[in-house]
Amino acid sequence: MKLVCLDLEGVLVPEIWINVALKTGIEELKLTTRDIPDYDVLMNKRLGILKEHKLNLKDIQEVINTMDPLPGAYEFSMAVRSKTQLIILSDTFEQFAAPLMKKLEWPTLFCNTLVIDEKDRITGYTLRQKDGKRKAVEAFHSAGFQILAAGDSYNDLTMIQTAEQGLFFRSPLSIQEENPDIKAVDEYKDLLSAINKFLEN
Amino acid sequence: MKLVCLDLEGVLVPEIWINVALKTGIEELKLTTRDIPDYDVLMNKRLGILKEHKLNLKDIQEVINTMDPLPGAYEFSMAVRSKTQLIILSDTFEQFAAPLMKKLEWPTLFCNTLVIDEKDRITGYTLRQKDGKRKAVEAFHSAGFQILAAGDSYNDLTMIQTAEQGLFFRSPLSIQEENPDIKAVDEYKDLLSAINKFLEN
Repeated sequence: MKLVCLDLEGVLVPEIWINVALKTGIEELKLTTRDIPDYDVLMNKRLGILKEHKLNLKDIQEVINTMDPLPGAYEFSMAVRSKTQLIILSDTFEQFAAPLMKKLEWPTLFCNTLVIDEKDRITGYTLRQKDGKRKAVEAFHSAGFQILAAGDSYNDLTMIQTAEQGLFFRSPLSIQEENPDIKAVDEYKDLLSAINKFLEN
Repeated sequence: MKLVCLDLEGVLVPEIWINVALKTGIEELKLTTRDIPDYDVLMNKRLGILKEHKLNLKDIQEVINTMDPLPGAYEFSMAVRSKTQLIILSDTFEQFAAPLMKKLEWPTLFCNTLVIDEKDRITGYTLRQKDGKRKAVEAFHSAGFQILAAGDSYNDLTMIQTAEQGLFFRSPLSIQEENPDIKAVDEYKDLLSAINKFLEN
């Protein structure tokens, strides 16, 4: 059997933190792993900013509630789900993703978890595991699947490389140039056609 | 993170082969693993019957198209999917399950595959792997999940026993009596309440 693994942000939905920054007007929340390469340092910085601005989980969820999947993402993901199994592998947090997952009719999501205190404050986060995207692909291998994986960013590389077929989707030119052996597509119709070919072979 | 694994037939949808037997009037298709314990012998017998009656994949799919999820299954499965990740682990075939999966809004399904020839005849079947339900639970463990699993039958036992929490759902009394340590429930509200407890702890 075959299975498709997709990254979430940048592939099916917009970047969540960037949108929170835009909607709250807190410029510092635009920082990404490009500015602060260490994910733990970056996340703790973000949590510090939320604390400073007294933003709780509910406040962030309200911003995320106003967000929509990327144009065409719903139709694309339903087309994939009607043909094969889709699992979204993301470094986001289940409490953030829920409103967007609802708009995508609850596809399966493997991600991480925020630690919330009794006053609804975000006090920390728990990774499901280190290098979780690669390990999920390996887990599906052990369950008898062949996998097509697609994502846009550095944290998708090991998943893309571990899958039987891997593609970049709307990835920056820099990462494409560093990995010339990985096919890059920018449109859902091209990704869907790669998935169809993968399912037929 | 946590995840729920459910069996399909008898838990979310009716028994597919029994319904095919009822709708086609072919009594022999009512045979189950209770009559013929060896699954391979049973499946080859079923495929022989389909051939004899000149029933192709399309004919069986048309019968399955008239089937609906069990009463309350849709609402129950959507309630589970809005709280956690749901993966259906089934010994059915992807070509059989599709019409029912559509009615359940495409939850993720790990199952097996029928071999179809160019004339749409069912000529064989491929198991994803042996003891696929247990191996899927082990795969989710390796991907960092704790699991609640529920099913009704003997082929669900290893999945139920490998999960952090396992329950029988609408299972025959005989299998319940043979496994008195496994909690048995018959109503979706009771299964949902067990899932909620599992997610809270």
